[in-house]
Amino acid sequence: MEVAILGLGTIGIGIYELIDKSEYLKDIKVKKVLDKDKSKESILKPGQLTDNFEEIVNDDEIKIIFEVMGAKEFSYMCIKRSLENKKHVITANKEVIALYLDELTKIAKTNKVSLMYEASVGGGIFLITPLLECVKINEVKNIVGILNGTTNYILTKMSRENLDFSEALKLAQQKGFAEANPTADLEGLDIVRKITILSMIAYKGILDVEKVYHFGISNIEYCDIIFLKELGYDIKLIGSSFNNNNSIDIAVEPVAVDNYNILSGVNEEFNGIFIEASVNDKLMYYGKGAGRYPTANALINDMIMIMENKGNNYFTNVNKLTIKEDLDKRSEYYIRFNNGNQIITDEITRQEFLSQLDNIKFYARII
Amino acid sequence: MEVAILGLGTIGIGIYELIDKSEYLKDIKVKKVLDKDKSKESILKPGQLTDNFEEIVNDDEIKIIFEVMGAKEFSYMCIKRSLENKKHVITANKEVIALYLDELTKIAKTNKVSLMYEASVGGGIFLITPLLECVKINEVKNIVGILNGTTNYILTKMSRENLDFSEALKLAQQKGFAEANPTADLEGLDIVRKITILSMIAYKGILDVEKVYHFGISNIEYCDIIFLKELGYDIKLIGSSFNNNNSIDIAVEPVAVDNYNILSGVNEEFNGIFIEASVNDKLMYYGKGAGRYPTANALINDMIMIMENKGNNYFTNVNKLTIKEDLDKRSEYYIRFNNGNQIITDEITRQEFLSQLDNIKFYARII
Repeated sequence: MEVAILGLGTIGIGIYELIDKSEYLKDIKVKKVLDKDKSKESILKPGQLTDNFEEIVNDDEIKIIFEVMGAKEFSYMCIKRSLENKKHVITANKEVIALYLDELTKIAKTNKVSLMYEASVGGGIFLITPLLECVKINEVKNIVGILNGTTNYILTKMSRENLDFSEALKLAQQKGFAEANPTADLEGLDIVRKITILSMIAYKGILDVEKVYHFGISNIEYCDIIFLKELGYDIKLIGSSFNNNNSIDIAVEPVAVDNYNILSGVNEEFNGIFIEASVNDKLMYYGKGAGRYPTANALINDMIMIMENKGNNYFTNVNKLTIKEDLDKRSEYYIRFNNGNQIITDEITRQEFLSQLDNIKFYARII
Repeated sequence: MEVAILGLGTIGIGIYELIDKSEYLKDIKVKKVLDKDKSKESILKPGQLTDNFEEIVNDDEIKIIFEVMGAKEFSYMCIKRSLENKKHVITANKEVIALYLDELTKIAKTNKVSLMYEASVGGGIFLITPLLECVKINEVKNIVGILNGTTNYILTKMSRENLDFSEALKLAQQKGFAEANPTADLEGLDIVRKITILSMIAYKGILDVEKVYHFGISNIEYCDIIFLKELGYDIKLIGSSFNNNNSIDIAVEPVAVDNYNILSGVNEEFNGIFIEASVNDKLMYYGKGAGRYPTANALINDMIMIMENKGNNYFTNVNKLTIKEDLDKRSEYYIRFNNGNQIITDEITRQEFLSQLDNIKFYARII
């Protein structure tokens, strides 16, 4: 079978190498690779590199297209046109999937091809497929996840190696976990996309990714870490969603977890996703949320499912969901105010907490 | 599609109820239920209960058979004859799968039917299917798991609620986590079967379940818990296997883990299975390892995969494996000797440790 790879960055190279090296994939041939950078020809075989998407999307021999460019509008257009031309699409693009999951699913179904996006959430963790299976006989109650390796790495380093925020960020960048411009990660936007994708699958409807509450860790300081550590808590940046009759309480924010919480064991660049479902009870998935090979592994696994005719698990949009924060939800909070004061509140409602947000520099909800 | 359930115990009732209640399974009909206990007729519809397996295995309308009797020879015979009569088989029977996985897989393949056993390890945790997928392009390096809910519950209660062993065991029995005769759980035999099944799938060969080293927690006392707790360790009963060129170092024994280890967060009756693979790196699966609905969920999920033609992931036996403990492996050990002395050793080899085993009442390998 012939395939094409759109984008020869970190993940694209991982896919290319795995197809090249794996005995199990010996019948797969990479026919074309889309990339504007001509110097990448040296990695490839003659004739594989092109900078013209039309060459790929109009090639009848190409049956499967990997989209790993990480663009927004261009990626969306490529995915859409590939599906319309009856090619299976496998993507890691969380931004596009969070925005267009419903539309792209419909196009895939109409054209009787697969749309696979295991790698869009949790990198190498086999998560989307089990969740699509799970919802067939379960009602999912809630999802709570550490979904971003960069911020989790920074928080782990601050806590364990007593680094301040800028040192930990620098280390993350040196290790290749944080991008040169890490804003989307630090502000929680990356997690917003991921928790939105998981929640749409879990609760079987559409959510507006742009309406999800988020508060990141850009303002965290070492004094926050140490204050909570002395009380037995670790800070984690968490995406969560709770389903209450199709009203979805979804948020991304720092939380304080104690040692007894399984999420406290999710450290360094790892991800951990906790799901509670009606029949299956509590589940957690843990693994590398990013990185060349774990992520490429997820994309290749999607391809194997397509090859074995198992790629027909589509997102179902049967519920009308609304995003609604539970303003009566009571929690204790750790708060550092703009004036530097640090406190632990009594149990207060979400409403009471939000009313103070303008005065707050950093906080963590205690769970 | 018509199905039969062999055994109407805790799990069998769970399967029966899920099929009855789930909209997704409305086309599935339970035609027959095998159970010797006539009083169970009251739970079922007229004509469903039978005590005669021949009625089921010779019924051409029955396409799928759930085996949840938990017997040994009789279960094995029923599974084998069902496969030979071209019926798909779904079982939770870890004893039979550990002993006969290779033979039963061959019979299933010959007869072009599925043999599914997701529920045999880790209860409701979706684990076997991902592992069978994983090995297509990964070499699995090692597996480390908390695979028994009963013992993990006892250890958690001893540690967190300062109970002694007999109190914790009684509590586990009251909660329904421990059987009246809990020996197989306490001695680690249940875990031996599970780690053997996972290891055979992961390393693609056969292992002799009867040759697996195991040391359980029958002799544990509160003094062991508290001694290690003061040093920052929790005791867990763990099954592990490491692959070194098809020589498999497999064992079930108590280990001491610190707070930083993800397995320290696996508490109460939960299971956690950690897998390290060549491409996918580190993964962990966490969830309810037992219980009516989580386990029935796994069995029903197997059925859905068969219904959707995804039940063709067979165990592959391509490697000649041998069980061989790594006698040079160095670890620290917590040891309580027969005379009551408690020590932490320096790093010693496995050989040095094993030479003292006759004098040891309880121990935990420190990892």
